[in-house]
Amino acid sequence: MIKKFVYGNPIETGAVVKPVEASADPIQYLTELEMNGKLIFNYEMENDDVVYGLGEANGGLNKRGAVYRSFCSDEPNQTEDKQSLYGAHNFIVISGMINVGFFIDCASEVRFDIGFTSQNMLNIHLGCPDFTVYIIEGRNAYDIVKQFRELIGRSYIAPMWAFGFQQSRWSYMNEDEVRTVVKKHRDAGIPLDAVYLDIDYMDGYKDFTISEERFPNFSEFVSEMKQEGVRLVPIIDAGVKIEDGYELFEEGRQYQLFCKKGDGTDFVAGVWPGKTHFPDFMNSGARMWFGSKYKSLIDSGIEGFWNDMNEPAMFYTEDGVNEAKEYLQNFDFNTNDPGKFFELKDKLTSLSNRMKDYESFFHNMDGRIVRHDQVHNLYGAYMTRAASEAFDNIVPDKRMLLFSRASYIGSHRWGGIWTGDNQSWWSHLKLNIKMMPSLNMCGYLYSGADLGGFGCNCTRELMLRWLAFGIFTPLMRDHSAVGTRRQELYEFGDTEDFKNIISVRYSLIPYLYSEYMKACLSNDMLFKPLAFEYPNDNFACTIEDQLVLGESVMLAPVYEPNAVGRYVYLPEDMLLVIFKSSSVRKYQIMKKGMHYIPVAANEVPLFIRRNKLLPLCRTSQCTDEMDTSMFEIIAFTDDNIEYNLYEDDGISKDYDNPDNMVQFAITDVDGVMGAVSNKTIVKLSLF
Amino acid sequence: MIKKFVYGNPIETGAVVKPVEASADPIQYLTELEMNGKLIFNYEMENDDVVYGLGEANGGLNKRGAVYRSFCSDEPNQTEDKQSLYGAHNFIVISGMINVGFFIDCASEVRFDIGFTSQNMLNIHLGCPDFTVYIIEGRNAYDIVKQFRELIGRSYIAPMWAFGFQQSRWSYMNEDEVRTVVKKHRDAGIPLDAVYLDIDYMDGYKDFTISEERFPNFSEFVSEMKQEGVRLVPIIDAGVKIEDGYELFEEGRQYQLFCKKGDGTDFVAGVWPGKTHFPDFMNSGARMWFGSKYKSLIDSGIEGFWNDMNEPAMFYTEDGVNEAKEYLQNFDFNTNDPGKFFELKDKLTSLSNRMKDYESFFHNMDGRIVRHDQVHNLYGAYMTRAASEAFDNIVPDKRMLLFSRASYIGSHRWGGIWTGDNQSWWSHLKLNIKMMPSLNMCGYLYSGADLGGFGCNCTRELMLRWLAFGIFTPLMRDHSAVGTRRQELYEFGDTEDFKNIISVRYSLIPYLYSEYMKACLSNDMLFKPLAFEYPNDNFACTIEDQLVLGESVMLAPVYEPNAVGRYVYLPEDMLLVIFKSSSVRKYQIMKKGMHYIPVAANEVPLFIRRNKLLPLCRTSQCTDEMDTSMFEIIAFTDDNIEYNLYEDDGISKDYDNPDNMVQFAITDVDGVMGAVSNKTIVKLSLF
Repeated sequence: MIKKFVYGNPIETGAVVKPVEASADPIQYLTELEMNGKLIFNYEMENDDVVYGLGEANGGLNKRGAVYRSFCSDEPNQTEDKQSLYGAHNFIVISGMINVGFFIDCASEVRFDIGFTSQNMLNIHLGCPDFTVYIIEGRNAYDIVKQFRELIGRSYIAPMWAFGFQQSRWSYMNEDEVRTVVKKHRDAGIPLDAVYLDIDYMDGYKDFTISEERFPNFSEFVSEMKQEGVRLVPIIDAGVKIEDGYELFEEGRQYQLFCKKGDGTDFVAGVWPGKTHFPDFMNSGARMWFGSKYKSLIDSGIEGFWNDMNEPAMFYTEDGVNEAKEYLQNFDFNTNDPGKFFELKDKLTSLSNRMKDYESFFHNMDGRIVRHDQVHNLYGAYMTRAASEAFDNIVPDKRMLLFSRASYIGSHRWGGIWTGDNQSWWSHLKLNIKMMPSLNMCGYLYSGADLGGFGCNCTRELMLRWLAFGIFTPLMRDHSAVGTRRQELYEFGDTEDFKNIISVRYSLIPYLYSEYMKACLSNDMLFKPLAFEYPNDNFACTIEDQLVLGESVMLAPVYEPNAVGRYVYLPEDMLLVIFKSSSVRKYQIMKKGMHYIPVAANEVPLFIRRNKLLPLCRTSQCTDEMDTSMFEIIAFTDDNIEYNLYEDDGISKDYDNPDNMVQFAITDVDGVMGAVSNKTIVKLSLF
Repeated sequence: MIKKFVYGNPIETGAVVKPVEASADPIQYLTELEMNGKLIFNYEMENDDVVYGLGEANGGLNKRGAVYRSFCSDEPNQTEDKQSLYGAHNFIVISGMINVGFFIDCASEVRFDIGFTSQNMLNIHLGCPDFTVYIIEGRNAYDIVKQFRELIGRSYIAPMWAFGFQQSRWSYMNEDEVRTVVKKHRDAGIPLDAVYLDIDYMDGYKDFTISEERFPNFSEFVSEMKQEGVRLVPIIDAGVKIEDGYELFEEGRQYQLFCKKGDGTDFVAGVWPGKTHFPDFMNSGARMWFGSKYKSLIDSGIEGFWNDMNEPAMFYTEDGVNEAKEYLQNFDFNTNDPGKFFELKDKLTSLSNRMKDYESFFHNMDGRIVRHDQVHNLYGAYMTRAASEAFDNIVPDKRMLLFSRASYIGSHRWGGIWTGDNQSWWSHLKLNIKMMPSLNMCGYLYSGADLGGFGCNCTRELMLRWLAFGIFTPLMRDHSAVGTRRQELYEFGDTEDFKNIISVRYSLIPYLYSEYMKACLSNDMLFKPLAFEYPNDNFACTIEDQLVLGESVMLAPVYEPNAVGRYVYLPEDMLLVIFKSSSVRKYQIMKKGMHYIPVAANEVPLFIRRNKLLPLCRTSQCTDEMDTSMFEIIAFTDDNIEYNLYEDDGISKDYDNPDNMVQFAITDVDGVMGAVSNKTIVKLSLF
């Protein structure tokens, strides 16, 4: 049951696709309060209420105890106190005696104080007077999430090759460096499907250009790599370099497609190329124009893109630099007021992404002039929209890989997201684990974190543990920043461990892809909190570090340094499978209840739920070579069971064809459990 | 068995008190390697070796998998990647098939790469050619720690009142604000023993001055507070304000007691008072001079101090500001080289604590001229030494409270430490838990973290969970930074919970103080890893989040948000005691093995070991009112047991008087366990 409440004259964000009639009644559940001319909604939580949602947000699965500010931010230093990350996903579910969901459809800043200031009080602070609130009632949190997902429409569907392992670095500087990366993976037997091109593949950081010097024969190189089973995925940044003669700049200026200042001139900020303009993605003409530019790269054979820097991130503006200059110029070394120094320091360190700058430029939303801060959270989403809609024209029958850094609900239909620039911190592995179900609640199914961490230096142990979770996320990409320790898997020595762990991914792809596709097609989740599958198990409902993955699997990743294993709670009897590699596995039937499972850093644990099965194919070096003609099946069953495997060509858009569903059945079961290999039940040897 | 190896011509740091003859043999265990003219020691670890030590350092109890840089640093933003905190404690123990300890007695930078670059390789990088290595062989890690503690001498002993609850804020601005803080504690029934005076009590941040305006009748105010059972603890900063007529400045300049630049002029840096000089604590005359200045405050009735900013922290130097000015002046907004901006940003953000500045001034170590960076890690330690040695003259028979931010081993004999400026992060609660035993290994027994976190905003839940661990640390202080949410306990509402939790501390003081004193007097640890008490229990040896506290208690604090309890492993049968308050308790006998214990945020759990007892006194509002004439005793025993309670006047230095030990005995035990109240065995009701 969904009700819609409209405040003021909201901008159409595109988040919602299902028509809901606006209610004329006063809003329910929420109490309105005005403070300094701004609206706040209040809701008093019960002691035991759990709050889910917020998609890409800091903290745990239960969002209580913190403040979350929806304002897409270039924030790599994601410490616990950070309120804004790269996405803005204003959907929460309160789950307890009362179950209710709120979606605040507002493209401006929204702040959720979820029991931070006062332990049982939820406050929602609205940054602008024009927005829509959807209130969803349901039987439980999961039911509410599914209704919400219907409301916002089917998620973007990635091509199957995008489930392969992907290697990135800021940046692989030229053809030869890419060749070496591919070769070293192949030599070590570490499967690989894609290599990323970060900003340095461009000519002077100019979007849709290619450095002649670094990549002299781009389309030939793209096809050379494709022969190796490797797709190249170039980055596209939001900002357009100001440079006379540069086509994108000239056209954007000529046709008025850039964001403008109050005086009508094009807004300027310093980003990677130096001085840039920002395309006005809020304008349909600008979207069509920018989107059409992807064609040249697609014509070169490119099948996937990542859109970056689209919060938009700004390193500096001229105003900012001048203010800082003035402050520093006026700083008196002889001062005895320490406050002066901290004022100065603040000026010097806050040159980037200043609110003042976000308030200084405007969009032309097909006639309606809107100051940027009022629609800030849509900017990255609409860049993704520009690309997605263009792909529908350029390659109408083909799925392209597309994901973005900044996002707003609605963009889940246009592309996936990665969770932005993180760090090589154990706590960011934990954040990755806890964030996946929240992302799924908000429609982001094709997603993942930078495995091993983007910033800082990664250790071998952290990489192995992160991969042992990362092999389950649809987007599985190792990415790291310039200046950090090299993070390609072969760089950590003893490559056998990495070959083994990635081989597990490749044998799991049929299951992962199948569960992902079924979740996309039915507006369901791929990663679920235990609470969603075992709502009557009170203890299971408190667990944040175990997840249900699709219908058959429960995950319990290790995320502590120097750990030899971890505690696990089983809400029912399950079969523990420890993968040493795709083919070397240990099995143990485990009883409902608490356990400590030893897991070495080069092992991958997973649990198979009772009366469920897991199909595995033989591992391969890339998805093009995947062989799904034969499956090995691990089942934990005392009864006849079935499994629907979704299988298609992985690239066309014939998603809904019923022929894509292949049924596996295990019949004539007489033992407690067994491994079914090509329909022959084989007893497993347990450890 | 301790061996000593001398390299070059080391500075006498004062870390070691026990004479050890220098060995003429080549060094053992460690392999020497020279790189860029600097020495590196290598040691190849076994897969299962655990590395303990490093005192105040980031990370877990097992230090493997990271780099630690001993270089006292003003680093409040303690994320996982930070290599330097406020202290420099170069003692590590490798524990496995081989057990060996290394103490690198070197006052310059030392870097420990403990399996970071290569998983099994320990590298110790020496920042200077003059140092001493002590190699300690022992039966196990605990044995090696005890030998090391003998080597470095008896730890500083705090007065008993310093075991009371202490409240701090940067800053309580005047008498009335302090009065209000005290009154609000008393009104809420929250016990309190001390209130801290941060930098604003001074006149213009000038050490050893008092603002006439804010604290017009200081000594009267000190005694007024003492009437309330509250001691005031003022801060002393390392830097001395440059101001004509200010006695400290004039004397320091006149008698050449400040650190000097190469050209012989006094070194200048910007700190709280603006331009300051740094006393040359490496010089015995300067120490005596600076130490003597504490007398005026002691004469006003002050009984405790905290020495701060003594890494030394520098906000800026004139050179730094000028360089930044030049960079910013030359910054071209029209640049298309993003690197230029990041260079600029780096210049602007690294004005504070620049290595270049540390390399630009000198000490006169009683004749030997040493550049600061060569003895950097001794600076704060020697400030503490200055105070400690002065106290021995000013109040020879009385224990003073004294702790420091920066430290080097040796300073554990002169004062305690707090763990510096942390944040209101759950991960810093966890860091606090894991750091306590490491601090103890290095001799720091009187220590603790800023409970609730210094920077960022604390929630009620985080405060309660942090207190539930903090009530066990000798230094128990709530401290928070200007600009953060008020963090006095009564500010969080529902003060009953805080009254209860602090009341538990006050009933525990006799046990805590007794175990602390016994640990000090016998060079033992107060907080021990389970591995030290249960070395044959392999599983116990892997646990980092449970600690043994003294002889009777095991702790298992909850450190996750929204948790309803936690997993606990018991290496033997134990009695779980859940304190709702000092007098309302629940008991449960628990079997050796794994458990999940539910613990509400307003409860304190602890475990009593088999055949051990815990004495509790009645709670009080301050230590002055503590009544130890009668104890309630909780015991978990099936046999006659004894406990030695250390009891003295808590303020004199008659530590070693054998009369200070009171023996408790429980005899004629016939039940499995019971509570003994005044020698009467009472059966406990279990839940």
